Formats: sequence, C-alpha cells, structure tokens
Amino acid sequence: AQLSTSDEHQDAQGLALALAQARTSYAQGGIPIGSVLLVPSSSHQANSDAPGPKFKVLGAGHNQRVQKSSATLHAEIAALEDAGRLKAEVYRGATLYTTLSPCSMCTGAALLYGIPRVVIGENVNFVGGEDLLRAQGVKVIVVDDADCKALMAKFIEEKPEVSLSIHLV
Amino acid sequence: AQLSTSDEHQDAQGLALALAQARTSYAQGGIPIGSVLLVPSSSHQANSDAPGPKFKVLGAGHNQRVQKSSATLHAEIAALEDAGRLKAEVYRGATLYTTLSPCSMCTGAALLYGIPRVVIGENVNFVGGEDLLRAQGVKVIVVDDADCKALMAKFIEEKPEVSLSIHLV
Ligand SMILES: [Ca+2]
Ligand SMILES: [Ca+2]
Ligand SMILES: [Zn+2]
Ligand SMILES: [Zn+2]
Repeated sequence: AQLSTSDEHQDAQGLALALAQARTSYAQGGIPIGSVLLVPSSSHQANSDAPGPKFKVLGAGHNQRVQKSSATLHAEIAALEDAGRLKAEVYRGATLYTTLSPCSMCTGAALLYGIPRVVIGENVNFVGGEDLLRAQGVKVIVVDDADCKALMAKFIEEKPEVSLSIHLV
Repeated sequence: AQLSTSDEHQDAQGLALALAQARTSYAQGGIPIGSVLLVPSSSHQANSDAPGPKFKVLGAGHNQRVQKSSATLHAEIAALEDAGRLKAEVYRGATLYTTLSPCSMCTGAALLYGIPRVVIGENVNFVGGEDLLRAQGVKVIVVDDADCKALMAKFIEEKPEVSLSIHLV
C-alpha cells in the first residue's frame, strides 16, 4: 500500500508529538523517549479539506523510569495507559508512534493490542523488536529522524549511567 | 537441571502467593490473575535448615483492568512495577510466577528483564507467549494447578463480557 499524503501528514505530526513527550521527559531529568497513540479523525473522511487535525490523539506519554522510579512505564506503555481501556477495534485502526525502537515489552504490548502500524523515530541508539513486529504482520516505519537521534545521543552522553538502564542493556 | 527440593518448595509457595493475589482481585470484582517476583533468600545457602521462607518476595500484584481501568497493569506488569527498579543481576536470579499463561506484553517484559524462569499456574484458559520464552532460553514451568484453573474458569463463567478483554482475545 502506498503511503497517502494524509498518512505522511499524520506521521509527521504523530512523531512530533512523541518527540515533544520525549523533550518533556528530558527537561525533567528523565529518559527522553516519548510515544503517542493516534487514530485518523473520523471527520477526515467526511471532509478532507476541513481545518484542524486529521487525527485524534488517544494517549500520550514518556518514559517514567527516573521520574516515578518505574520499572514498567516505558513511553509506549505510558501512552497505552494514558489512552485507557479501548475497544479492540479502536486499537486495530491506530498507529503507535515512538521516538526510539521499542523494547521487547513494548513490542509485546503493540502485539497484544493488535496495533497494525508502528512508527519509530530512530533505531540508531537502540534496536528493539522490529523484526518480531514485522513477522506478526505489523507495518513498521522507521523514520530515522535527526531530532530523535540527537536528543537520545545527547542524553546518553550526558547520563551514561542512566542510559545503561534505558532498556536494561 | 533437576528440580531441587528447595526449587519445588519455592515454586509451591510462589504460586500460592500469586494465587492469593488473583483471589484478592476476584474479591474486588477484577480479573483474577496474580503474579509475584521471587528470588531465593541469600540466607538459604548459608543455613538450609534455618526456619522461615527460603526466598524473598521482590514484588507482587494482580490484574488492575477493572479496578484501575488500566490497559497495561496486567498481573505480571503490576508485580514488576511493585518490585521497583532493580539491578539487572537481581532479575537474572529471579523467578516470575503467574497464575495464567502470560500475554505477549508480559512475555516481552520477562524477556526485557532477562528473567530466567517463569512458573505458570495454568495454560488451559489462555495460552500466551510460552514458545517465545522458551525460544529465548527462558525455563518455563507449567504447573497445571487445579485452583488456578478453577478460579479463572469461574470468573469466565460469571463475567464472560469482562473475560473477553482479559487478553483482548
Ligand atoms: Ca489521555
Ligand atoms: Ca513491593
Ligand atoms: Zn519498552
Ligand atoms: Zn499480560
């Protein structure tokens, strides 16, 4: 399937929102990984020339390892938790955005919910479960975004001791 | 490796604690799945005849889908979150107990933390990521526990609409 202009628009906006989450975490002294869960806006189909966002943010979050001393609130888990309990069919129309390649737990969470598309800011600073996602039929898009890479690289340089526990590697 | 008597003792106790968590959740109207993270007690090696538990509970929890309207606090995630931020080597000596076969998210969480042993109460009411765990070198023990099976079966019969969302199947 060809990426439509509206997909491109949504993906640019979705990743920008995930990066904003990552920057919020960085500003708090935390691990700068952010994530959002989006669905296309239903109004989009009705009137593609309508102003305003063509998608709806279901949930957003960032890594909370430092801030909440949390072992499980990775960015993607935080976004899914923020989205709350959704019907199965909502997940099946959603895209999960994350600034960094997802670890095995977050990969498994995407599979659990049957999320069909995962857009990843970068996989230079960490490579997670992309192959497993693809093997399970998930569409994986790696943007190789310069801002995502630069933010994570800066954090790793500044706080190598915390970075070691980003994904417990 | 042969299962030692102390492993058998720990596993019986660990699963009993997980089942107690599941029963707590059931009593609250929630999904009756429980989990605990255990390590052998260091005093055990020093004096195997010492009274008291031969293991230490690092974390315990149960599914919070109903109670907290949580999309991500499965029993295993709740137990890992309760255990807090641990050093990588602590996970590598730990066993994760869960009353029901773990979903893909919780499977991924066990892999993320490098937990080498997962003890599962039953896999009759749901089969999760056991094959993936084994493929990654995790020792998986399915107890086929009558009490775990009966509790989950009772819940599914009483609340089929909630049970459908146990693992979003
Ligand atoms: Ca929200
Ligand atoms: Ca605790
Ligand atoms: Zn993760
Ligand atoms: Zn689970």
